[in-house]
Formats: sequence, structure tokens, C-alpha cells
Amino acid sequence: MKKGLFITFEGIEGCGKSTQARLLKDYLEEKGIKAILSMEPGGTEIGMKIREILVDPKHKGILHPITEALLYQADRNQHLKEKIIPHLEKGYVVISDRYQHSSIAYQCYGRGLDIEKIEWVFKNIVNGLEPDIVFLIDIDEETSMKRVKNRANTEKIELSRFEIEHLNFHKKVREGFLELAKNSKNFVVLDGKEDIETIHKKIVAVVEGKLNNV
Amino acid sequence: MKKGLFITFEGIEGCGKSTQARLLKDYLEEKGIKAILSMEPGGTEIGMKIREILVDPKHKGILHPITEALLYQADRNQHLKEKIIPHLEKGYVVISDRYQHSSIAYQCYGRGLDIEKIEWVFKNIVNGLEPDIVFLIDIDEETSMKRVKNRANTEKIELSRFEIEHLNFHKKVREGFLELAKNSKNFVVLDGKEDIETIHKKIVAVVEGKLNNV
Repeated sequence: MKKGLFITFEGIEGCGKSTQARLLKDYLEEKGIKAILSMEPGGTEIGMKIREILVDPKHKGILHPITEALLYQADRNQHLKEKIIPHLEKGYVVISDRYQHSSIAYQCYGRGLDIEKIEWVFKNIVNGLEPDIVFLIDIDEETSMKRVKNRANTEKIELSRFEIEHLNFHKKVREGFLELAKNSKNFVVLDGKEDIETIHKKIVAVVEGKLNNV
Repeated sequence: MKKGLFITFEGIEGCGKSTQARLLKDYLEEKGIKAILSMEPGGTEIGMKIREILVDPKHKGILHPITEALLYQADRNQHLKEKIIPHLEKGYVVISDRYQHSSIAYQCYGRGLDIEKIEWVFKNIVNGLEPDIVFLIDIDEETSMKRVKNRANTEKIELSRFEIEHLNFHKKVREGFLELAKNSKNFVVLDGKEDIETIHKKIVAVVEGKLNNV
């Protein structure tokens, strides 16, 4: 029996979703509301091992798109059963940095897999849960790539297999997210070029509204 | 365009399928027939990383049955696209130690997942290929566990997550394999308690018959 609130953050690389997810979690905890911040892929110990396969830049051009899609669903299933659902049952606000809409945006809009089939697996194999709120932080693909490269330079980290994809791939993924937002009532689209504090306040307003209605 | 022959070996732990698969491969190569021996999970580099997650005994009781089933399909997809299909196209005899029937026997008969759903993923997501011949080497579960424990003692290796399953699990898996064999025309069931050379000769006779008919 679900009692908590399930919130996901979506968007292309460098849009600021991880920052906003963390700020929201801190805000909720300060208000005394039980909240956890998790992510996909890698929200569980097993998921972290799946994540290593998915982000490894050495797998570019080798990892087949369908293998990739199935690994995401495997990670998601483990995440749901081991962490998301048990916390929702205990009344937590569960925040996930990426979820099913990333699968549709990246593997279907980005790589051309069939949306209906990937949705079928999510619904019938994973028995996936719909989020109560999806925050889509939207930026254009040029800004995305600039931010990602700056971050890699500053933090001296290697780019992931997704971050080294070409600009047109990120463009298709962005368009996919916007298309999904158009057709779903639980999406909230935010402009990722606004400053962090402005975006955070908008997120808090939406979440507060939802919490007061629970 | 498939030109080669696709042969799989199935059966419960310790039935002798890996030995027989290797003997068949050696036999074919000696006859000058192009053949490769592969396995699931782990027939590719990416598959080996998936295999590590699947066999790790520390994941017993943690790895969710649906996560497990999806990881097997991910491994299988990579195996098919990267190795099995390209070799069949070049006219090889491709021998795989385990394949889709293991998924049905272990995850469906063994753990209770829905056969139709797992078959749906195999057919519609993975676009799975049917083997030309499935050799099912049948032994009872008591013999299976005795052999597995002897091997672990002799070779000083840790038992895998499957090998530490209880006897009743292996009994259900065995029954699953036999049920699958009943309903499929490309199964050849062999008695795994016969000696290695006798079983090998029977396998060779079947493969020779098939090769002469290609």
C-alpha cells in the first residue's frame, strides 16, 4: 500500500536535475518530512553493478541498444522492489534522479527502439509504478554539452558513454522528453537556464501543493 | 541470413552439458567443420559482467527474480547480436552452453514467473532465434547436487548462487526442462547418468544427421 509521494527528475545531461533533486531532499528533511534521494541507474547495490556496464565509455558501439534497454529495466525493477516501494509504504517522499521516462527518451526517441514495446516491459514485467510528479528540467543540447564538458574539466572526471554521444542524439532525447511532457498530466516542465534558486522555489511550490493535498 | 547450425545444451547443474558441449566442438573442428563454443550467461565481454551479478552467491535473497530474468534477457540479446548471429551468418556451427530454455526452466518453473511474459520478451524485445537442436541432458536433482559439491571440493571453488539453491528448486527446474522437451520438436533428451563417451556418440549421431540434411 503506497502512502508516500514518488517524485522523479528527468532531463538531458547537465540540465541540473541532480542538483535540484538534492536541494529538494534537503528542503524536505529540514521541514521534518521523511525523504530519500535515489537515482537510476544505480539506486541499489546490484543497480550500481548494472550502472557500471551502462556508463562505461569503452562500451560505446558495442553495447547493443536492446541490451541497454533491458539493463535499464533490470536496474529499475531492483530499484522499485528493494528501495522505492518499501520507502513509499513507510510514507517517505521518494525522489529519483531519472526513471522510466529516461528509458523512453534515450532508448526510444534517441536510439529508435519501439516505445510501445519498452512500455510493455515496464508495465507487464517490471510492474512499474507511475511517479506522482515528474520534474523535467529542460535545456537545449548545446548548453547541455557545454556544461558537461566544463564539469568534466573542473572535476577531472571521464565523460560517460552518454556524455560522449553526438549533439544530434541529445537533441532527439530532449525532443522526446518534451513530447512525453505534452502527453502526461503529472509532468512539470522547468527552464533549466534559470538560476538554481529560482528553479528550486518553483519545485518546492509544486511539492508543497501536492503534500498538502495528500 | 542464417547459414550455420545453432545447437544449445540445457540441463540442471552438474548434468554434464559443458563437458558434452566441449566434446562436440572438438569433434566438429577435427572434422574440419567451423564451430564455436559459447555460453550463457557470459558469452560476450558485456555478458561476463552481467554473469558476475547473476552468479554471485552474496546476491542470494537480494536479487529480485524479475531483475534476474531481465539480466538473462540482456545477456542473451548481447550474445545473439554480437556473437551467435554473426557466426551463423558465416556458416559456423554455434554451440551455446545454456540459452532461452534455461530462462524458462529456472525463472518460470523454478521461481514462478509467468512463462508467456518471459517468452514475450524473448520474442518481441530480443527477437530471439530458435535453436536447431536442443540437447537436454537429464539427471535427477540428488545426483546434480552430489556432483556439484564434489566438483567444488575437488577444484576448491565457491558454489554459485544457483548451486546453493535448495533441492526442491532443482527438482522444479528439472521438471520444467522435461516439460519443455515434451512440447518441442527440436529437443533431444539424453540420460546424463550414462558415461561421457556414450552420450557424446549419441550427440554426434544427431548432429551428423542434421549436417547432412543442411
